[in-house]
Formats: sequence, C-alpha cells, structure tokens
Amino acid sequence: MTDKLNRRRFLTHTTLLSSGLYGALKTPKAISSENTAEPDPTKVPGSNVSEYGLRSPHEDIKRLPMFNIISGTPLHKLQGSITPSDLHFERHHAGIPAIDPNQHELLIHGMVDRPLKFSVNDLKRFPAVTRTCFIECSGNFNARATPQTTVQMLCGLTSQSEWTGVPLATLLREAGVTTKARWLLAEGNDAAVMTRSIPMSKALDDAVVVYAQNGEALRPAQGYPIRLLLPGWEGNTNIKWLRRLEVSDSPFMTREETAKYTDALPDGRVRQFSVVMDARSVITSPTYPERIEKGWHEIRGIAWSGRGKIHAVEVSTDGGKTWLKAELQGPVLAKAHTRFRLPWQWNGKPTAIMSRAIDESGYRQPTLAELVEVRGLPTAEAYHFNPIHAWEVDAQGQMTFRPEV
Amino acid sequence: MTDKLNRRRFLTHTTLLSSGLYGALKTPKAISSENTAEPDPTKVPGSNVSEYGLRSPHEDIKRLPMFNIISGTPLHKLQGSITPSDLHFERHHAGIPAIDPNQHELLIHGMVDRPLKFSVNDLKRFPAVTRTCFIECSGNFNARATPQTTVQMLCGLTSQSEWTGVPLATLLREAGVTTKARWLLAEGNDAAVMTRSIPMSKALDDAVVVYAQNGEALRPAQGYPIRLLLPGWEGNTNIKWLRRLEVSDSPFMTREETAKYTDALPDGRVRQFSVVMDARSVITSPTYPERIEKGWHEIRGIAWSGRGKIHAVEVSTDGGKTWLKAELQGPVLAKAHTRFRLPWQWNGKPTAIMSRAIDESGYRQPTLAELVEVRGLPTAEAYHFNPIHAWEVDAQGQMTFRPEV
Repeated sequence: MTDKLNRRRFLTHTTLLSSGLYGALKTPKAISSENTAEPDPTKVPGSNVSEYGLRSPHEDIKRLPMFNIISGTPLHKLQGSITPSDLHFERHHAGIPAIDPNQHELLIHGMVDRPLKFSVNDLKRFPAVTRTCFIECSGNFNARATPQTTVQMLCGLTSQSEWTGVPLATLLREAGVTTKARWLLAEGNDAAVMTRSIPMSKALDDAVVVYAQNGEALRPAQGYPIRLLLPGWEGNTNIKWLRRLEVSDSPFMTREETAKYTDALPDGRVRQFSVVMDARSVITSPTYPERIEKGWHEIRGIAWSGRGKIHAVEVSTDGGKTWLKAELQGPVLAKAHTRFRLPWQWNGKPTAIMSRAIDESGYRQPTLAELVEVRGLPTAEAYHFNPIHAWEVDAQGQMTFRPEV
Repeated sequence: MTDKLNRRRFLTHTTLLSSGLYGALKTPKAISSENTAEPDPTKVPGSNVSEYGLRSPHEDIKRLPMFNIISGTPLHKLQGSITPSDLHFERHHAGIPAIDPNQHELLIHGMVDRPLKFSVNDLKRFPAVTRTCFIECSGNFNARATPQTTVQMLCGLTSQSEWTGVPLATLLREAGVTTKARWLLAEGNDAAVMTRSIPMSKALDDAVVVYAQNGEALRPAQGYPIRLLLPGWEGNTNIKWLRRLEVSDSPFMTREETAKYTDALPDGRVRQFSVVMDARSVITSPTYPERIEKGWHEIRGIAWSGRGKIHAVEVSTDGGKTWLKAELQGPVLAKAHTRFRLPWQWNGKPTAIMSRAIDESGYRQPTLAELVEVRGLPTAEAYHFNPIHAWEVDAQGQMTFRPEV
C-alpha cells in the first residue's frame, strides 16, 4: 500500500479516536503485508474441492473433556446461536454405545391399546417437525471455578441444535394411550440403561423423538440413531439412544430421579422432578482468558430459559450497580439460546461485567447469594444452579472470573 | 421381548394396516434383537467423551466434488434448514487459499473520506449481527441430468448457514462514503483475485462482512477468515477471503460480470447483473435413489427466494394436474431455505411428484418450458435456471428424476 494511504490512515485514527462511536475501537498498526514471509495467497494455486470442508488450522476450538464423563462446549469461542454438532456438550452415564441403526428399534408398550415397535426408518416416514432449542445438563455449574475459569469450564454443558424428528404425541396416538396413563418411562440403549420418568403432559405437549441434528443424523454422542427431545427440560431426561417407552399411571422412581438429579435443600428435604431449566444467561465475550484494550467493545452472551422465550437480558458494566438492557438477536425462539449484545466503552479502570436474564414467565436469574439462601452452598453435584456470573477486568485489561459468592 | 408381546404386535399390525392415518406406514417384521450377532450395547462399555463428536460410521453423507471446481451439498440426505459447515457447497475460481488470519486485512478505499484497513480482530469488535440465510450458486442447474440424478447432483449448489459478522453499512459509515458513491468493488484474496461490483444500495441494505458460520469461524472453503454476505444474491457476489472494497461511482465491469455470470438470451442479448436468486423449490425426499413402499410418506423439500420470504409451496402428486399447499416449517425467514412437508399416500401406481414455490413478491417458480421460452435451451453454463423439477415413481416404487422439458 502507498505511503499516501499510510499517512491518511494515521490522520484517520487521530480523528476517530476523538470522535465516532466506534472509532476508538481500531488499533493503529503498521501495514505489514509487504514485509511478511508468508506466501501471497493470490500467487499460489489454492487447494481443491473435497468431500468435507475442514476447519482452518489457525482455529483452536474443541470440547473440553473433564472427569471422563463430560465435555463442555466452547461457548466463549462461539457466535450466533447454533452449536456445531461435533462441539455439542457430552454427559454420558456409561459412555457412547455403538449402535447399528438397522438393528435399533423403539418399543412403546405398557398402558396402551396397541404395543408397537418402530424401526428408525418407520420413524422417518411420519410427519416431521423441526425446532431449534437448547439442551442443558442440570449439573451445569462449576463449584471449583477459579479466576482462571473459562465460560466453557464454567457452564459449557449447554448447547443448541436444530432438531428434526417425529412428535412423541403422534407415536402415542398410534399406540393409543389408555385413560389411566399419566407417566411414561424413557429408556436408553446404553450400558447404563439410562431411564427417566416423563409426565404424559410433557410427552403430549412438545416432546419429539429426534433423528436429525443440524440437518443430518444425530451424532453418536447425542443419541444416534434416536433420542428423546424434551425442550427446556434438564439434559438427562432427553434420553439418548432411546429404545423403550413404557406408559404407566405413576412415575417409575428410577435411580436418576431419587439418588441423583434431585436438589438437596438446606433443611434436609429434596426437590424431586425439578426438570425445567431455569432462565440463565452468561457473557461469552469478553471473558477469561481475553485481555482487552481501552475503548469500544461489544459485550456478547447467550440467555435461555426452559419456560419459554427470553424476555430481556440486562447487563451491568459497573459491578452490578446499574443495569442496561441488551439487544436480543432475533428471531427469539422459545426454549432456545438467545444471543444478546451491548456496546461497552471500557475506560481502562478495573470493574466487573455481568448479565441477568428475565424470561417470559417473569422469572429473573438470581444472584449466587439468593440461590445459596434457598439451596445451600453449591457442591460439585449442585443441580439447577444458574447464578449471575461476574467477569472482572483489571487495569491491564485482563479478564478473570469472579468465583466468590 | 416376550412371546406375548410378539403376538400382540402382529395383531396390532393387522389392525393398523386397515385403519389409522399413518398405520399403513409401518412394515411388520420379526423382532430380531435376540437373534443378532451384534454386541448388545447395554452389555459393553461405551466409548469415552472426546474433543470432537464424530459422525456414526453407519452414515454416508458427504459433498460430491465435480469437475474439480464444485462440490454439492447432499440436500437429499438433509433435514431441517441448516447445512452443516463441512457440507456447505463449494464453487471456487482458483481453489481455496491458505490464509493466516493474523496477516489478513480488509481495505476500504476509493470514494471515501477516510480509507481504512481493518484486521480480523478489529472487525470482531464492531456490533455484530447474526442471520440465517442461503447462499446459492447462480449456476445451480445440471443440464446433463439423467433419470439417475440425485438432488445433490441436480441442485446441490445451495446451502444454508447461520452467519455472524459486522454490517457492511457500519464499516462504510466509518470510512465515510462520498455523495457520488454508487458502487463498490469487492475483491477476494485468492489466486483468482475474484472481483464483483456491488451496488451501494445493497451494500447499505443487508450486506454483512461475516467471520462466523454456524457459530464458529468460517471454514476455509467458505472464505476464512472473512467473506462478504449478500443475502439472496448469487453466490459468486458473496466474495470469499474478502480483502478489499473500493468505492466508486460506477460498476467495474469485471470478467465475472461481463464474460461470465451474465445470462445469454435467445435473441443474442444478455441479462447483466442478474444477481438476485429467483424463488425455487426442490423435493428432497422421496427422490432418486429411494425406492418406496405403498402407503403413507411425507413429501419433504426446501424452498427459497432471494427476494424475501417464501409465501407458499404447492406440491403435485399427479404429475402436475392438481396442486396442494404444503406445510411450511416456521419460523419462515427471508432469503432462507424453508422446509416444506406434505403427507402423501402412494397407491402403488406410477406417477410424478413435483413442487413449486411462490415468494412474498408474488414470483412463482416457472416450468422448464417457460424458462426455455425466455432464456433458450439450458447449457452447462445456464445461470439462474430454477425450473420445477419432477420425480417419477414406477410401479415398483423406484424414484427417478424426469429430466426432459
């Protein structure tokens, strides 16, 4: 580029730093394209078309396996609302089974007029529905978080896909549920034979037996060839590798709704069948390990609620003293990760940024103190902990997580 | 499963084959899970969590490279509306350049008050927008189609992603376009130095400089680290590996808008700057190579228009004599692949199924005969051919494409 352009650009920066909403955003730096040792991409032939379009080797984005039972989605590196299928979080109870879809069947039996078995191809022939929604593990809270915790480590156990399948109501209508039917057991074809009791009301409302995720077949880690989708309900009820639905008049009281996935309260009682995921939000950028510069940034994050649409997200840039309404990226869908954004001019002084979600039911995301008052101190098995998170910035621009209550 | 259940199931099938809307859909078959040689997934430990969730080895889904310049999306194997990023179609003019994002810059110059250069990180700090829309190659027509042509071979050069980036209007406001500015040149950093002229009206309307596709960084084959997104406009104007925008008062008349990407008309004239993609639809299932059984199916497909939202899709199951309105999967978004569905009870007799799209501008997808009357016989370089496609089913249930006019 010409010297003239270089000179004009410096003038530009001088101007923009003192005017223009986003002017201060840009960092002046020497134009370097002539001095680089990299080959000029316009002077060498590019690579060929292929069966799969791989990621750039310059991008480092992957799930974070932890304790050999979970792997979190890199939320701090994602934009928009879709989670690429190979980055969808994992929480298995006995690993990922290897299933031949031609051998796999779904049995519906119990309090039905006609017990039925469906092959995967049978299911694909029924009228289909597609919906975009999140699935979140009810244990999506990191009680061991430190200042050097990323969003992925903090709450990476939520992901969003565009799911396609057959409404469970259609299948239950085929089988003919009896008038006494109130619950059903959903069972997976994995080595845990994972089971959960689902109220008939949810099954007939918006439950879907899904076979496609983001356009193509489910990934094995998400239940290939079929899983139960219960929009807005805790992840483990969305039974993966679904093989059996038994209709009954009462819940089955499985291990996963008695010993596990119940919320111990300080007074010794437990919340049971606490299946709806409460509204939550998290800032995804800027967060640890980012180091930011003085000037304009866009605070970005996602908010979601198992009760319906996100009504609003409020963001504080002064440690919680004042709150501003963030912009929500449309279309705002029910029970779906909703991207929010707010411009922020950082003045170079230490502060903390945080976000809180309000859903269409009026539920407002609580502080950790509020949660602890009701549920006690969070442990590694704290379910349904959805506190407001804070991210601090120091005078050097280093972002860190603020883990204390 | 018990013998009792086996007996009940046979009774069930007898009943369902003669009643119930979708009863005839199910194929009775012996319950085989006891007799299989496959290991029982509930008796062996599953595989561990990992950094990436790969596809099942039982799924065969990939792009189809052709002529070393394109690869088509397997539309006939996709559900919903999102195209997984590694299956997004390709059309390159000199292959895929290897670009280091830290070396890449976007220059905006020409008729502007302040020529500017942006690093990729600069662009990410601006207020972002996310939108889901298709990109379609204007040459998305196969003049060599035979009865054994899949949807992928026929029109696989359209794909849909959730894109995130900075509105081009924001960047142009920073640079300050002069009052005489009417066009801009967009230039790619590939060995073709691909260039197209874009009217300022489109640039200021809904153009976006995107850096994210389906949540993560663009794939190299889709323009990593940044591409121009012109929703609804022919693919080649959505300049990949975008490195330069030159503002001017007139179009630049590049090779790609003079020798190429113009539509030759029978009278010797050409349509130039025919950039908006006309409304189109295609049935994705059942199509070749599927072989179907008598009974209920769901006809599925996608429809899209560069002019806005899909208003309706009509489907014929009797070779075009009568048409029924298909159901559209919401939310219906502007300039986006829209899934349509219609239940169909095939009676076992040969027929042809077809679909036609109507968009919110009132444009109706034409027949091939109507197109040929206006544009002449399609060649391998026929641009903007969007005819109604027909799929025949013979008495054995074999689906084939009907290529003749």
